[in-house]
Amino acid sequence: MRKSIATVCLSGSLTEKLTAAARAGFDGVELFENDLLASPLPPEEIRSRAADLGLSIDLYQPMRDVEAVPEEQFVRTLRRARRKFDVMRRLGTDTLLVCSSVSPYAVDDDALAAGQLSQLADVARDFGIRIAYEALAWGRYVSTYGHAWRIVEQAGHPSLGVCLDSFHILSRGSDPKGIEDIPGEKIFFLQLADASLPAMDVLQWSRHHRCFPGQGGLDVTSLVRHVVNAGYRGPLSLEVFNDVFRQAGAASTAVDALRSLIALEESAGISPLPAPVVPYGVAFAELATADPQPVTELLGALGFRRTGRHAAKPVELWEQGEARIVLNHAGTTRREGTALAALGLESPDPGAAARRAESLLAPVLPRRRDAQDTPLDAIAAPDGTEMFFCATRRPEHPDWTEDFPPCAQPAQAETATRGTITGIDHVALTQPWHHFDEAVLFHRAVLELRPHESVDLADPYGLLRSRALSDDTAGLRLVLNLAPDPEAQDGTRAQHIALATDDIIATGLRLLTAGAGLLEIPANYYDDLDARYEFAPGELDTYRALGILYDRDEHGGEFRHLYTATVGRVFFELVQRTGGYRGYGAVNASVRLAAQRR
Amino acid sequence: MRKSIATVCLSGSLTEKLTAAARAGFDGVELFENDLLASPLPPEEIRSRAADLGLSIDLYQPMRDVEAVPEEQFVRTLRRARRKFDVMRRLGTDTLLVCSSVSPYAVDDDALAAGQLSQLADVARDFGIRIAYEALAWGRYVSTYGHAWRIVEQAGHPSLGVCLDSFHILSRGSDPKGIEDIPGEKIFFLQLADASLPAMDVLQWSRHHRCFPGQGGLDVTSLVRHVVNAGYRGPLSLEVFNDVFRQAGAASTAVDALRSLIALEESAGISPLPAPVVPYGVAFAELATADPQPVTELLGALGFRRTGRHAAKPVELWEQGEARIVLNHAGTTRREGTALAALGLESPDPGAAARRAESLLAPVLPRRRDAQDTPLDAIAAPDGTEMFFCATRRPEHPDWTEDFPPCAQPAQAETATRGTITGIDHVALTQPWHHFDEAVLFHRAVLELRPHESVDLADPYGLLRSRALSDDTAGLRLVLNLAPDPEAQDGTRAQHIALATDDIIATGLRLLTAGAGLLEIPANYYDDLDARYEFAPGELDTYRALGILYDRDEHGGEFRHLYTATVGRVFFELVQRTGGYRGYGAVNASVRLAAQRR
Repeated sequence: MRKSIATVCLSGSLTEKLTAAARAGFDGVELFENDLLASPLPPEEIRSRAADLGLSIDLYQPMRDVEAVPEEQFVRTLRRARRKFDVMRRLGTDTLLVCSSVSPYAVDDDALAAGQLSQLADVARDFGIRIAYEALAWGRYVSTYGHAWRIVEQAGHPSLGVCLDSFHILSRGSDPKGIEDIPGEKIFFLQLADASLPAMDVLQWSRHHRCFPGQGGLDVTSLVRHVVNAGYRGPLSLEVFNDVFRQAGAASTAVDALRSLIALEESAGISPLPAPVVPYGVAFAELATADPQPVTELLGALGFRRTGRHAAKPVELWEQGEARIVLNHAGTTRREGTALAALGLESPDPGAAARRAESLLAPVLPRRRDAQDTPLDAIAAPDGTEMFFCATRRPEHPDWTEDFPPCAQPAQAETATRGTITGIDHVALTQPWHHFDEAVLFHRAVLELRPHESVDLADPYGLLRSRALSDDTAGLRLVLNLAPDPEAQDGTRAQHIALATDDIIATGLRLLTAGAGLLEIPANYYDDLDARYEFAPGELDTYRALGILYDRDEHGGEFRHLYTATVGRVFFELVQRTGGYRGYGAVNASVRLAAQRR
Repeated sequence: MRKSIATVCLSGSLTEKLTAAARAGFDGVELFENDLLASPLPPEEIRSRAADLGLSIDLYQPMRDVEAVPEEQFVRTLRRARRKFDVMRRLGTDTLLVCSSVSPYAVDDDALAAGQLSQLADVARDFGIRIAYEALAWGRYVSTYGHAWRIVEQAGHPSLGVCLDSFHILSRGSDPKGIEDIPGEKIFFLQLADASLPAMDVLQWSRHHRCFPGQGGLDVTSLVRHVVNAGYRGPLSLEVFNDVFRQAGAASTAVDALRSLIALEESAGISPLPAPVVPYGVAFAELATADPQPVTELLGALGFRRTGRHAAKPVELWEQGEARIVLNHAGTTRREGTALAALGLESPDPGAAARRAESLLAPVLPRRRDAQDTPLDAIAAPDGTEMFFCATRRPEHPDWTEDFPPCAQPAQAETATRGTITGIDHVALTQPWHHFDEAVLFHRAVLELRPHESVDLADPYGLLRSRALSDDTAGLRLVLNLAPDPEAQDGTRAQHIALATDDIIATGLRLLTAGAGLLEIPANYYDDLDARYEFAPGELDTYRALGILYDRDEHGGEFRHLYTATVGRVFFELVQRTGGYRGYGAVNASVRLAAQRR
């Protein structure tokens, strides 16, 4: 039989994937949507490259939550489908995969599902395209192949069949014998995967995936409360089997472990700690560099002004709105070039913040780096980033900005222009692989930041684990990233500073005019945006010209963001949030990461 | 409350673990049995080191399958317990953890469980020791804390209480509120762990742990048969989400992928391949080295004789019984020192074996390395090891040994002594991390070897994954290992050749007399052996003197093995199997790996 492979199985750029599949001897590929969106090649070019390599494009799956949804949603789906059928025509592929809905808006109505799939198949037929409908094991209402087939049978449409996937069938324990009752010509596609079984086993879970209290999802706090209520007064003892801890340095793991128990005693009401002092903003981000030229150029292009210069050291303060960058070229040459070395956090009570941090075993740093500096309470985060507790320009506290007497001359000619950057939206810190869970617990317990859900972002060479934390006002947002290959010297190791702007188009134009490097985003990405959303005339063209990425949440909140080129280990993101958008544009991460790899 | 940590949470030697726990500020530790057995320190010394560091030893858990077992088994348990209570006295710890039985011989009888636990508690009381009984989430009959408490209550023994573990309670979804119904003084110990939840989720399973057909545990073959029976004639398409494949090189992943489909087509009866030609033994193992001196000394000490020398190249043949080592110092200097470069496999039909390998995409190597060599069919395994299909001294085939004309002089004086080594028992090959599953499928499909269960071996700095494969006669056994940190230059990266002996004591004595380096095994290991088994007088002393490790399977089969020091990347194991023992002494691996780290 012909043999195909989904591009998601292979690492690298789409070109690398096609080449590898062809060289191994495959006849075709399933084209994964992210691989298309992240590719700088237009669909026609992908088609001809594949053809030159002797590969057909057998399947494409850009649609989600197609069937058994409210009419208004389905209308949008049909609109998007037409665009995607056009892309498929350009790709030369004739089979569209539709997975069963997982949407909370989906309804349990087979007739509706069959009707909507029929309508979609009607449109598909005009493009010469077939719809292969597949039951996801975790589909909201349709989760078995038998159910998917009943719906296809009920629809009775010549352009509608089923797709069978061995994982979805066997992982649920369904009997595959019933497949023989489906007419072969209605099985439009067969996807194959095996899977290691132990991942589902409580024994394996216990032996590999335990973690310290507060790092996982079990309610250990309540359990401890019940045990103490029962009268137990023995030790709290950690018994954690974890593959990462087995490899990490014992000294830091032990501190992480004890911190988890100290935080647990607080949450269970056993031993109080100094009350949390929650930081509410970024006072400054400090970049250490041996070669300030590229960074100062970039800061200038972003509209920052050099507002102060340290009296005694080669350290400068750059400002725009509430965004402050400290540029430190005092240090020795860093192997990695420009890097994010420290963060100033706005704190309601810096001294109390440091006392709480110390009670949770945070390494406390000297209050002064040098004798002449303003004293600042400071700690080191698990990744080594120095965290200063600041009270910027608040009369009752020492003010760190006083270390930077104003510059006589503005650094850039364009100071007359109104700045479009208003502050620091968030800071993303790449963690060493064995400190990721530790860092989440650290920032949660020490700074009382709330961790958001952990997400996996697809980089072309592996998954990038990412987890945001923020205070309740979202004035301070940190994003912790874990690179797939922590040793690699590449984009996934970069730190970044996301600057908030109230006019991302003006900011983008300013960067473009100044000749600053902007990240190039492929045209396929914008074609997909166009299929997903309706924009005002010209809007998408502007995004395309400036490399602006776009996301919209389910409440209509919008997120526009763009990326500068990387300097050393650091790049800047410009973000504009409207309508209460709270995320970080994770949906665009794979396109961005692929672009940074190029 | 006092805070403890199980030594298993931390990496390194026991001394490193204790130091890290103390420095972080813990009050005590749970001593994991493997950490004790692998430590060269006697229990008294561990006790005093811990005390010097301000740590108590709060718990010890050397026992398994204690309760609700047949009387004859329980008698052995009591004998072992007395030895362990003595060790606990020397350690200065007073609480023994007993986990609920998982043994297939356990019975569902709470009264029996309570009675046996009472008997154990009686003995414990004489040593001033308490028994803390814990329900494992996967206990055979006792898997909830409520059930464990009912048994403890029924026993009504002052030295018997419960141990609560947050993982075992919360992972099963038990309500921890019921803990408050247990009197606090009967809760002898509390173990805490959190756990990441997604490990149990089918979505996460699907997104991270899929693999190519034949590499996991799903019956993809039957499913494909049903699909073909239904009349489907479209492509077989792989859709595999796997964290490792995302990072591995696309070219080798694509070959691995296509091989899985070719093997699947064969097993599902779709397309036949050249019939399997199963190798049945190791013809030779080839060591490449730039500095032959240490290896030749070791081979001499092992009783090998240099029997031949290649006519044209600095390559030697060393033999003893059916064990043949080819020592090649022709190559350029290898960065890693002596390494295992090639294996000769005894094959019933070398040409046919190569044809099957080629049909499964194995890279076929030139039949002659040099013009004057005997032609041999050869392929490269995924880890780069060259595999030669041999017919050693079989008249109808070319004989590779003819390339090695006999040496005029025996290399060692001791040729008069009868050799005790009879052949090569198995060869262990360390795999690059992204080729492990590929290698298992390769050896299974190409050589038709049967994979055994995958096991995780505890190295002090991480888990070592290990999977054996063998032919049905067990004439050829390969062990594939995956080191926890594939970049580390340490013992876990070593390859090894296990030599079969019919008299391991004589072999050990010979090595000792020759002054060859033997791996030093801690006294604690032998104390534990003594607790587990009864040996003939003097037997254990001999094992202790020679560093012989011991295992016994459930059918009474016995395994005795010892290890030489490591030369370059290679060491030798000597193994003696009796009574049909089929394993590899995995139970001893953590002690061996810790010893190799020292």
